[in-house]
Amino acid sequence: MAKPLSLTPIGQVHSARTAPIDDDWGGIVARIVLDSDRFGPEALAGLDGFSHVHVIFLFHLVRAEKIETGARHPRGNRAWPRVGIFAQRGRNRPNRLGLTTCRIVAVLGTELAVAGLDAIDGTPVLDLKPAMSGFDRPDPLAEPDWAREIMADYWREGG
Amino acid sequence: MAKPLSLTPIGQVHSARTAPIDDDWGGIVARIVLDSDRFGPEALAGLDGFSHVHVIFLFHLVRAEKIETGARHPRGNRAWPRVGIFAQRGRNRPNRLGLTTCRIVAVLGTELAVAGLDAIDGTPVLDLKPAMSGFDRPDPLAEPDWAREIMADYWREGG
Repeated sequence: MAKPLSLTPIGQVHSARTAPIDDDWGGIVARIVLDSDRFGPEALAGLDGFSHVHVIFLFHLVRAEKIETGARHPRGNRAWPRVGIFAQRGRNRPNRLGLTTCRIVAVLGTELAVAGLDAIDGTPVLDLKPAMSGFDRPDPLAEPDWAREIMADYWREGG
Repeated sequence: MAKPLSLTPIGQVHSARTAPIDDDWGGIVARIVLDSDRFGPEALAGLDGFSHVHVIFLFHLVRAEKIETGARHPRGNRAWPRVGIFAQRGRNRPNRLGLTTCRIVAVLGTELAVAGLDAIDGTPVLDLKPAMSGFDRPDPLAEPDWAREIMADYWREGG
């Protein structure tokens, strides 16, 4: 059995979106506010030279008893195959980590405004990493059909 | 001040690469072995339908006193601008999280073989997520020149 690790959020999401939903995340601009007890504006210096940032965050509202460790239909939809929790992006996952690549709108001191962050108000943020073509996009992607279908309405503008 | 969180590794990296270095990560095939006390083969079911997986791991050898919370030159190279720790991918970062998108070579029970994982033998793994075009690649990327230069030898075959 692996030993638990302790991580401390670097900041928090401030967003008009306060309820977790499955779709319609397009058009949302959220702010990531760093913990000003630990970080100054230097921590984000130069991030405005990038178009996109990877945000690693915690799905903090997922309760322990909801976490899936085996397989399930994505979103419970039986039209899609039953696949392992590590073969899907659902939030009821071990360690409850979310990962989204967002467009950088503005960097203002210890705050970062981003578009396309599918995390609700109050979400703890664990790391920010600039998206780098040489690091993140080595090859074309291949994926099963369900993985394209499930994203059909995800970024629809509903916010 | 944010409250610490407890996460438990889902498994570990098994790799011929045992020392952390900055370049030459091409050609490395590593195995990610899930904690078999908690996970069965179902957890990875269907992952072989994807070409790539995002691996979130811990840079476990970074000591607390080495962690940067402000700005520094990437890799200490003064030819590149001094940028914030959240505007670079260096491992001496708050929470010590690594994120790499790897090519899936094979799924075998509770083991996953991947190419292009820049994590050494014994690295704790915190999450695996399939790379999905609709989720991960909404836009073309833009980045500063240093971010392209720093990757020049990173995936060179040296292993």
